[in-house]
Amino acid sequence: MQNPRRVRNLGVIVGTLPTGPLNAITDVPGVRVGQTTLTGDGLNTGVTAIVPDGYAGTLPAAVAVGNGYGKLIGTTQVDELGVIETPILLTGTLSTFRVADALLTWLLDRDPRATSLNPIVGETNDAYLSDIRRRPITPAHVHAALDTASSDLPLEGCAGAGTGTTALGFKAGIGTSSRLVASGTVGAIVQSNFSGLLTVLGRPVPAKPLDADGNSCMIVVATDLPLDARQLGRLARRAVFAMGRVGSDFAPGSGDYAIAFTTNRTPGYADNDLRGPFQAVTESFEEALLNSLTMARTTTGHRGTAHAVPHDLLA
Amino acid sequence: MQNPRRVRNLGVIVGTLPTGPLNAITDVPGVRVGQTTLTGDGLNTGVTAIVPDGYAGTLPAAVAVGNGYGKLIGTTQVDELGVIETPILLTGTLSTFRVADALLTWLLDRDPRATSLNPIVGETNDAYLSDIRRRPITPAHVHAALDTASSDLPLEGCAGAGTGTTALGFKAGIGTSSRLVASGTVGAIVQSNFSGLLTVLGRPVPAKPLDADGNSCMIVVATDLPLDARQLGRLARRAVFAMGRVGSDFAPGSGDYAIAFTTNRTPGYADNDLRGPFQAVTESFEEALLNSLTMARTTTGHRGTAHAVPHDLLA
Amino acid sequence: MQNPRRVRNLGVIVGTLPTGPLNAITDVPGVRVGQTTLTGDGLNTGVTAIVPDGYAGTLPAAVAVGNGYGKLIGTTQVDELGVIETPILLTGTLSTFRVADALLTWLLDRDPRATSLNPIVGETNDAYLSDIRRRPITPAHVHAALDTASSDLPLEGCAGAGTGTTALGFKAGIGTSSRLVASGTVGAIVQSNFSGLLTVLGRPVPAKPLDADGNSCMIVVATDLPLDARQLGRLARRAVFAMGRVGSDFAPGSGDYAIAFTTNRTPGYADNDLRGPFQAVTESFEEALLNSLTMARTTTGHRGTAHAVPHDLLA
Amino acid sequence: MQNPRRVRNLGVIVGTLPTGPLNAITDVPGVRVGQTTLTGDGLNTGVTAIVPDGYAGTLPAAVAVGNGYGKLIGTTQVDELGVIETPILLTGTLSTFRVADALLTWLLDRDPRATSLNPIVGETNDAYLSDIRRRPITPAHVHAALDTASSDLPLEGCAGAGTGTTALGFKAGIGTSSRLVASGTVGAIVQSNFSGLLTVLGRPVPAKPLDADGNSCMIVVATDLPLDARQLGRLARRAVFAMGRVGSDFAPGSGDYAIAFTTNRTPGYADNDLRGPFQAVTESFEEALLNSLTMARTTTGHRGTAHAVPHDLLA
Repeated sequence: MQNPRRVRNLGVIVGTLPTGPLNAITDVPGVRVGQTTLTGDGLNTGVTAIVPDGYAGTLPAAVAVGNGYGKLIGTTQVDELGVIETPILLTGTLSTFRVADALLTWLLDRDPRATSLNPIVGETNDAYLSDIRRRPITPAHVHAALDTASSDLPLEGCAGAGTGTTALGFKAGIGTSSRLVASGTVGAIVQSNFSGLLTVLGRPVPAKPLDADGNSCMIVVATDLPLDARQLGRLARRAVFAMGRVGSDFAPGSGDYAIAFTTNRTPGYADNDLRGPFQAVTESFEEALLNSLTMARTTTGHRGTAHAVPHDLLA
Repeated sequence: MQNPRRVRNLGVIVGTLPTGPLNAITDVPGVRVGQTTLTGDGLNTGVTAIVPDGYAGTLPAAVAVGNGYGKLIGTTQVDELGVIETPILLTGTLSTFRVADALLTWLLDRDPRATSLNPIVGETNDAYLSDIRRRPITPAHVHAALDTASSDLPLEGCAGAGTGTTALGFKAGIGTSSRLVASGTVGAIVQSNFSGLLTVLGRPVPAKPLDADGNSCMIVVATDLPLDARQLGRLARRAVFAMGRVGSDFAPGSGDYAIAFTTNRTPGYADNDLRGPFQAVTESFEEALLNSLTMARTTTGHRGTAHAVPHDLLA
Repeated sequence: MQNPRRVRNLGVIVGTLPTGPLNAITDVPGVRVGQTTLTGDGLNTGVTAIVPDGYAGTLPAAVAVGNGYGKLIGTTQVDELGVIETPILLTGTLSTFRVADALLTWLLDRDPRATSLNPIVGETNDAYLSDIRRRPITPAHVHAALDTASSDLPLEGCAGAGTGTTALGFKAGIGTSSRLVASGTVGAIVQSNFSGLLTVLGRPVPAKPLDADGNSCMIVVATDLPLDARQLGRLARRAVFAMGRVGSDFAPGSGDYAIAFTTNRTPGYADNDLRGPFQAVTESFEEALLNSLTMARTTTGHRGTAHAVPHDLLA
Repeated sequence: MQNPRRVRNLGVIVGTLPTGPLNAITDVPGVRVGQTTLTGDGLNTGVTAIVPDGYAGTLPAAVAVGNGYGKLIGTTQVDELGVIETPILLTGTLSTFRVADALLTWLLDRDPRATSLNPIVGETNDAYLSDIRRRPITPAHVHAALDTASSDLPLEGCAGAGTGTTALGFKAGIGTSSRLVASGTVGAIVQSNFSGLLTVLGRPVPAKPLDADGNSCMIVVATDLPLDARQLGRLARRAVFAMGRVGSDFAPGSGDYAIAFTTNRTPGYADNDLRGPFQAVTESFEEALLNSLTMARTTTGHRGTAHAVPHDLLA
């Protein structure tokens, strides 16, 4: 059985921009990731927390909805105010609301005066490999993900919110990547769970389709560039567009979202200079997505088995 | 102390269209309302459930965002698919997510195969009269609201999700009203909690402003007219617009939303004929809002007291 | 026959904020207005130009669509880039496109290298009083409006794009007003042409409805506050909401839009401080709208007569 | 010099669905296309008219904005009412408004009572090969395109609105294609003019970048499936997403839009069945785009030369 490897270590080089030191969203200064993974007993699910420093003071942010068949929590307030005020959590569909509630608990503990908070929780549906109806995520799982968030390279593949997801016919999960541009860093992390024909640098890698409903893709983009919410929306849309590069069929039942935020509260970036950040988002997403596949392990779960993509198919 | 009275019984007649038999959202055939009210021990909060027959088969629906500073759950999927697939619940801000989770529990019990659901939960912030940080709503409270939903006249004023809300300087709460148009019924129910200068049929009724943050307005519009989602969006926007008629100042921190749905799945209504339904929405909202005030009782809670609007000021 | 008077001179004081020196959009430093009026031979139409200094370097801007049944040109680019790059013109519906083309001519003459421009042209339908199908606006009319733009008090009532419009059963037209807030000025100019029941400070002033189709309202809001595009969108929405204060019925066939821009390119305004600017927009719109009526003269045109609102009804 | 050939005749088979008889948007019953081409004297521009039977009675339609840096006319009314009421025209950027005005002339001649019309005119910027500042399109050019519209295979490559456009480093222009699905036909026509790395069935075909600003893509999708406006919006978004398949870099300055309409006014299509239509849109766009390139001829114009893609590179 093959060992998980990042796609770049398999010789697949996505794009032309340099990566950050870890080639991960945590290359963006102040961005930490923590994850809780649940396996066994018919469960393959978890929580992934993206925790940017300074969230409590609000950070500019925007959401792009590629296909709104999903339960992403917190969107209207992000649209209106152009900020996030909490960490961003990812999980399995039916656990979304108790994860949001657990995030509230964690935040209320840290801010004794808060009476209103807008948690951001994204999800994809891991019902194929996990007994989703049990909604197994507890507050302790959520708090562990938040409390252990670090600036290290996040676990990829079968970890956190990606433990039970599948994409493009293969076992998928969490993947991350980053790119450096002139004046900053752009990083992406993805919970991959959508249908289509895996395409690696333009070459199709067919798989037997899985009978996995609820296909979706949840993307988080972070940067330290001085972008305002409108510009972050433009970045987020490029992350959604980039799903086509890896073979998404943009199916009617897929909940495809990207949320982009910056840790830099001082706006002042010219739209004319966005070509580099757009390229960085595109490349980061594409490599993050491929990492979510090549770092995953074959998994047998609630309703069947999803196979890891054979690395030799990508050579 | 005055007894709660519906505004029409105080001689205030809003608009010119006839009301339905109950002058309530439950005049729309198949629409039921149930509520759970929590009071005492610093709490004034609750749950209001709007339960339309046939929700499980999906009903056409649309959301209008007047000011997105709120946590309304479920919007992107309603936007994408143009339907609701669950009852609609209202509650206090910080309880939103556990209420959504309890709704899931109730729905999963009724559909043993469901693995994806898009709960709709709206909220306003009742922190002035209720100890909101305790998040006191339990699954039992939610299920009671759902299970007791009936087609009777809903409780108004200090009931359900309106138990702890204030609006326009007075104690507010839940209000409802309906109007008949050529080929059907339009009804509204409102959880009122916003700032401004109470205006009754154009006449200002000033109040001493309350130090109540998190002002918001959550409106649900129901009809049995054969409207599609796009047209329901047009109706929902009129409900938001109608907030101006009662004196909303559309404050930056208010979460003002309307969701409109129809129990009639057969589209085929001409946009040219929407003038009547628009008027019905406007009148229903305005009277519902006034009912939410005149039916409320002076309430002392967590951080202060909100007085019922003196009925004699409206004469 | 009564002489046109501004509503404030009739004793109607809208709101509580102080006005600028002219009580006009031209109180915003750098904002000029020019108008061309066509009358006679069955025509009552024209062009109104709002010309902010610095447009060529782009100015932050946003559009709010209350009811999109109109032909406002330029919206998607304003949404995407958050700026205007041209003056804003208003005219009658069927002349919209030749007005936009004439604006291009004027701009191309001033910028010998321009190969892409996004003209902003709003409109309402003046077919009741003007033979709209003749599309009588020529480039010379457009250029005259642009070239004569000044920082004086703009003509109101039957002037420019308001020459042939009616609102709330009365002859309407162009109106303007302004308000001062802590750190700047907010001004509005309106081309009023919509249906409903005229309401002055809450008091209804009924009129016999006119058989005038194509009712609409086009609002331009200017400020020198350091707002970004997202915040300007929030202002623009308040202008639409304020239509309810003067009695709009938000009819299905009305094209109701507001565009807001700032002459101040340095963002840095806190959303928490928007309450004042929101109030300023609301009051400016309301008074501008009333001015558009009280400054109008009874006009007989292509298909009938529209009467000026009798001033004594407003006392 | 190579002769223009459709990409399918070069052995490039896009997707798996069958094409319609002409493999063109005109395979959709009732959809006709007419074009006027201007060349010589520094000009390479024109008009492309998509004329669906029944437009005057309105047809369900929706617009998707991939990147709103463009001047597409008519969007807010399509969003609000969910219909088009005119043919759809494409042209070069600075001619957009006079083309819209000429379309009005043509429509007013055909409807003696019309006083309001919402012309739909899309554009991309052909300034590299055409002296765009001259705005050379006359009403006669527009009317010729409309009057000669036929259900034949439209001219592709250097024709109509595509005469002066370039894409992905090569001469581009107009391309069309269609696909058959279970109960109807989906067709697309594209005015291609955007940047990126040409990608044919996943394989990159690099070109020397052209110094051509104003890159954009305007896509029209037609069908006879019984879709409502919301569903057509979902189709339109897939057309934008499909731009990634041919190598678009979704540049910040690109105006990328799709408008989708149906000739079938009877809604009643289940969203669950949209997978086929989505695939049909994706394949139709991709093949239309490739046709716009392989059918184009090397063209020297106002500011330089754009080379046709060498067909042998695609083999």
